[in-house]
Amino acid sequence: MRAAKRTAQATQESLHRIFTIAEAPDSTLGRIEQEMSQNLAGFLGNHIVATKNALSDIEQDFINAQIPEQPEFVSDHMQHLLDKLVAQSVHTSSASFIGHMTSALPSFILPLSKLMIGLNQNLVKVETSKAFTPLERQVLGMMHNLVYQQQDEFYQAWMHSAQHSLGAFCSGGTVANITALWVARNKLLRPDGDFKGVARSGLYAALQHYGYKGLAILVSERGHYSLKKSADILGIGQDSVIAIATDENNKIDCQQLKAKCEQLAKENIKVLAIVGVAGTTETGNIDPLDKMAAIAEQYQCHFHVDAAWGGATLLSNKYRSLLKGIEGADSVTIDAHKQMYVPMGAGLVIFKDPESVAAIEHHAEYILRKGSKDLGSHTLEGSRPGMAMLVYSSLHIISRPGYEMLINQGIEKAQYFADLINQHEDFELITKPELCLLTYRYAPKAVQELLARSDEKTQAELNLTLGKLTKFIQKRQREDGRSFVSRTRIEVARYGGEKIIVFRVVLANPLTSQAILQDILHEQTQLAQESENFLPQLLEAAKA
Amino acid sequence: MRAAKRTAQATQESLHRIFTIAEAPDSTLGRIEQEMSQNLAGFLGNHIVATKNALSDIEQDFINAQIPEQPEFVSDHMQHLLDKLVAQSVHTSSASFIGHMTSALPSFILPLSKLMIGLNQNLVKVETSKAFTPLERQVLGMMHNLVYQQQDEFYQAWMHSAQHSLGAFCSGGTVANITALWVARNKLLRPDGDFKGVARSGLYAALQHYGYKGLAILVSERGHYSLKKSADILGIGQDSVIAIATDENNKIDCQQLKAKCEQLAKENIKVLAIVGVAGTTETGNIDPLDKMAAIAEQYQCHFHVDAAWGGATLLSNKYRSLLKGIEGADSVTIDAHKQMYVPMGAGLVIFKDPESVAAIEHHAEYILRKGSKDLGSHTLEGSRPGMAMLVYSSLHIISRPGYEMLINQGIEKAQYFADLINQHEDFELITKPELCLLTYRYAPKAVQELLARSDEKTQAELNLTLGKLTKFIQKRQREDGRSFVSRTRIEVARYGGEKIIVFRVVLANPLTSQAILQDILHEQTQLAQESENFLPQLLEAAKA
Repeated sequence: MRAAKRTAQATQESLHRIFTIAEAPDSTLGRIEQEMSQNLAGFLGNHIVATKNALSDIEQDFINAQIPEQPEFVSDHMQHLLDKLVAQSVHTSSASFIGHMTSALPSFILPLSKLMIGLNQNLVKVETSKAFTPLERQVLGMMHNLVYQQQDEFYQAWMHSAQHSLGAFCSGGTVANITALWVARNKLLRPDGDFKGVARSGLYAALQHYGYKGLAILVSERGHYSLKKSADILGIGQDSVIAIATDENNKIDCQQLKAKCEQLAKENIKVLAIVGVAGTTETGNIDPLDKMAAIAEQYQCHFHVDAAWGGATLLSNKYRSLLKGIEGADSVTIDAHKQMYVPMGAGLVIFKDPESVAAIEHHAEYILRKGSKDLGSHTLEGSRPGMAMLVYSSLHIISRPGYEMLINQGIEKAQYFADLINQHEDFELITKPELCLLTYRYAPKAVQELLARSDEKTQAELNLTLGKLTKFIQKRQREDGRSFVSRTRIEVARYGGEKIIVFRVVLANPLTSQAILQDILHEQTQLAQESENFLPQLLEAAKA
Repeated sequence: MRAAKRTAQATQESLHRIFTIAEAPDSTLGRIEQEMSQNLAGFLGNHIVATKNALSDIEQDFINAQIPEQPEFVSDHMQHLLDKLVAQSVHTSSASFIGHMTSALPSFILPLSKLMIGLNQNLVKVETSKAFTPLERQVLGMMHNLVYQQQDEFYQAWMHSAQHSLGAFCSGGTVANITALWVARNKLLRPDGDFKGVARSGLYAALQHYGYKGLAILVSERGHYSLKKSADILGIGQDSVIAIATDENNKIDCQQLKAKCEQLAKENIKVLAIVGVAGTTETGNIDPLDKMAAIAEQYQCHFHVDAAWGGATLLSNKYRSLLKGIEGADSVTIDAHKQMYVPMGAGLVIFKDPESVAAIEHHAEYILRKGSKDLGSHTLEGSRPGMAMLVYSSLHIISRPGYEMLINQGIEKAQYFADLINQHEDFELITKPELCLLTYRYAPKAVQELLARSDEKTQAELNLTLGKLTKFIQKRQREDGRSFVSRTRIEVARYGGEKIIVFRVVLANPLTSQAILQDILHEQTQLAQESENFLPQLLEAAKA
């Protein structure tokens, strides 16, 4: 009994210690922290092992569903994390990891993140965030300014107004898109006479009251999957998201968009929102936003722009005009954790009209009292961390001209890579870059020539085999772990709109050099030779 | 021209540097990082100034909506953050900040957070997270185990299965609640014959197909405001959330719950979900979950438990039984950033049935391919950070018995504080603690005696003035900055169910000592004397 009491006492003391005493600098954790502080790239390079481990093997290290009954020493646990987690992570900041929308982070981000986490503010209300609330409002103001460029008076009037908000900060682009369409839905189906509005009475009563047969969200076929998810969540239904065809540059066909609006109006289906894409996920193209804004205006519907990827391009005076017309949007999604080089978990939606958020406002007794400046009264999320601080600091430390340089570099690097692919006779550029994304595939010269002179049926067969080859190369390259490109399937006009499998690259990492891009083509050429069936088969066909 | 080129060159080099070279240890940022590493509590104590600054004054520091055109040196910016942001933040981890659900963090959290952020994984898919995906699945398994205590075979079968998931990790309890109700809605209104289901066809078609007049969500009047928000977002409407009365212990009245189910069935309104609360936000009480599970079973509806706050109590063998019946829930929300001492941004929802998430599954070409183990195919959010790592590490380093000690301490500290209040003749305990929350107010002995002998009308008048006094004390205390309690308005049975204003405290911070609690009552007694009108008025009434 006494022994048990002593153990309890010891555990109690050790618990108290972990809340009060820091890790010693010479502890495992202390040393690792220093290593990370001094050279994050080196740390990640040293500790992330480019293994060919299958996921099923890794799962064996994470198989126990019991919550541990024995505490672990911090240092032991850290070693375990290094061996089992870090070693088997993805080196997302590697200069040769150009397959997804992750990049290296500026070095000041790490200590600032630590400060943000140590402060552990909760942005849901002023009482748990104080200066973080005005800071987040300022960041929303700056981002609104980036998109809409209003006069100073506008920002002085609305930025810190309790009843208004220029946008909503959130964990990422999906929540931002849901929030935008939530606002659009609630504004469209607003209270009217005896009808209390969709927010209170729900969608069934709302459609009955307004007499609409249904709702629709119109977006190009390149729209992000989060829009269907939004339509599902908001009760509108995924099938209400109508995909409009794109032209050969992956931009929405405005003729067809207009025709669809016309048709839906006749069918008494109300267009809830037209969604423009500024930086498609697969190819990085930008819809003709100005034309779309005009159509939305004509049909009196909400115009949302999903600029999760491309929004940061507005920071570049040189390329800003690629998004011309964005100022006609009622709402805009921008992910700071993409081209603004902030860590994962920082998305935002901006509203043109500071009154928009009233459509989703809610209050509670103990927080979010009416008239308070609590940010939580018009966000989808409740408790939220102070990620806005990292955007604030990045905007100040990098500044707009610094961001411009990063954005321009990315676009111009993609143009360089496109040239490289075009000049290489065994590669085929599929979509040329508008922002810093492009798609391509490995297709030996002879096969490309054969494709050019083949009929559609033969083309389809060849593309099928080329697709298998692309998949083979991509998987191998990923497993080898030196570099990474992603793959997707897209419709290609020159092959009759058939879906073909392609490599997809995103060139946002400032550390990705021209030499790395050259190496990637070289590596892919070599991997192609290792395909036992597909390449020989293709070359055989080309010879015949 | 040449000068401009040189400037551009210099900016380019400095940009490259911020992505490659760490801050020097003797730089401002380096020194601050060390200070935080060595003694976070000291750092926060030194830098957060307990100012009486009004929010409108602080806003003046965050007033510029222009994105800077000039880069700032990291060190200068850091000094700016210390002066304007940190100094004017809230010391959420202070031992005397007992008004909200934030607490001190264990010291190992800071370096681990830094590791998590440096790795910058994206949990939406395996390609950008690798070992983090099995890790998150393991954490979901452990939390499922905590709630449902299934056999090992269960976890071996489902934890890492591509088509299944034991839950969804998310940024916080609100998203967790929305996700749970989204699943419930889509399961209820599932595909059926020609009807493609609510996910595809929307709520209007779904209600028509199933012939329901409406849907309802039943929860006690102490339910969290996120449930109304969920009902709004999901298209069901806030008015469909029906508040069931609570007993004198703030627990749902099961008689009334059942009666409401009966009535709704007659009206052809389908109960979408019954929601139990395990740890009400205001008073920390727990609904009779076992009885609610039986009612949900009887009326064949989804039973969700919002255990955002109280879920961690399951880690305590001593107090686990407070949540008895939770294993009857179809889904459970738990916030790791509350009583699991992980930083802001870590919520989760657990599903009893591993197949549940199929109701919200979605796929896309370039990611979330069918058959992949990508976690993003059944989460509300898209791109997400690796916060699950912090839960994983905390579970290993603190372990279940460590958590038990923390939970027990909190509950017993609240019992101590309740005793203190009861023994103090000038304070009135309003709700006694079941978990580590309680509410009370300052009410001089003479006033309490007057209340006891007064009729309802006089009681109401006295309570109004006492409410004003409570508000006065709470605001003053917050402004003085030494300590913080929150306030709310709750219905109190002994005063005829009238809503009265009370102090609310949450005693989850392991560093909050008995001495601090004594000081808080002392401080409040003193602040009461500073009220120029309310206290004299009350004392006058008591004398008459």
